Amino acid sequence: MKSSGFNSVFMQKALMLAAEAYNNDEIPVGAVIVNRKEQTIVAKAHNIMQKHNNSLLHAEIVAINRACQGLNSKYLENCDIYVSLEPCVMCAAAISYAKISRLFYAAADRKQGAVEHGVRFFTKKSCFHRPEVYDNLDAEKSQQLIKSFFRQIRKNGL
Amino acid sequence: MKSSGFNSVFMQKALMLAAEAYNNDEIPVGAVIVNRKEQTIVAKAHNIMQKHNNSLLHAEIVAINRACQGLNSKYLENCDIYVSLEPCVMCAAAISYAKISRLFYAAADRKQGAVEHGVRFFTKKSCFHRPEVYDNLDAEKSQQLIKSFFRQIRKNGL
Repeated sequence: MKSSGFNSVFMQKALMLAAEAYNNDEIPVGAVIVNRKEQTIVAKAHNIMQKHNNSLLHAEIVAINRACQGLNSKYLENCDIYVSLEPCVMCAAAISYAKISRLFYAAADRKQGAVEHGVRFFTKKSCFHRPEVYDNLDAEKSQQLIKSFFRQIRKNGL
Repeated sequence: MKSSGFNSVFMQKALMLAAEAYNNDEIPVGAVIVNRKEQTIVAKAHNIMQKHNNSLLHAEIVAINRACQGLNSKYLENCDIYVSLEPCVMCAAAISYAKISRLFYAAADRKQGAVEHGVRFFTKKSCFHRPEVYDNLDAEKSQQLIKSFFRQIRKNGL
């Protein structure tokens, strides 16, 4: 669903970050955190699990950590997050805990996604902050990156 | 349930860390990551959300980050984690992603716990690694800390 608040510039940036991750042999996911009112980038990241040998460093987690540090704020109520892929349960919870206002994501993730699939964390009683969610935004490019990445992984037997 | 692999020394340490968090006005949760074979501490942490103004810095997340960094390893297959409180969904997912072998926790968390309560992440199809779980270990001290902390919060109107 397209929202009037959606700004395709930031989704394009998230997709560029995903492509950058791909070129660095990282799972191709990119995330951009935006000041909702000023429409400026607060923080951005791609997955850096391989680079830092740390399985928690998903794009969303790294972007939220950078935004909290940059703004010196525990909560990001005035921020939106743009992600190239449906967040997993860890990242969905992180987006909730950080009180991010709106979540825009590109491709769905039927296996590990936890927004419209799997755990559907934002619908749960234990979720105390629910962002507005807009999905399926410029999904094709993100899907292609993910498919190509995992095809390569299988081909190389990794 | 007590397991033969349970070592109360590490749970005591997790409880001490929770008490340290309490004394620093942090939500009183402590976590200790242990080399399963050698029974030595690999990393430890308490909640540092207030200190770093970052709502993602739960004890388990900080401990896993430190362990990955210390061991230069993305996965912690040979490690156990001892936590003073039932992990939330973000931390349960993080424990799964890091492939931690066993999870020992003290008090249950009926509101935000995601192991035996709420989302019950380890039972879900989207969970690809399930640690062995042992709960209700030295629960009383942890429960007292948590109750006292939130009583104080309510009293101070925070």
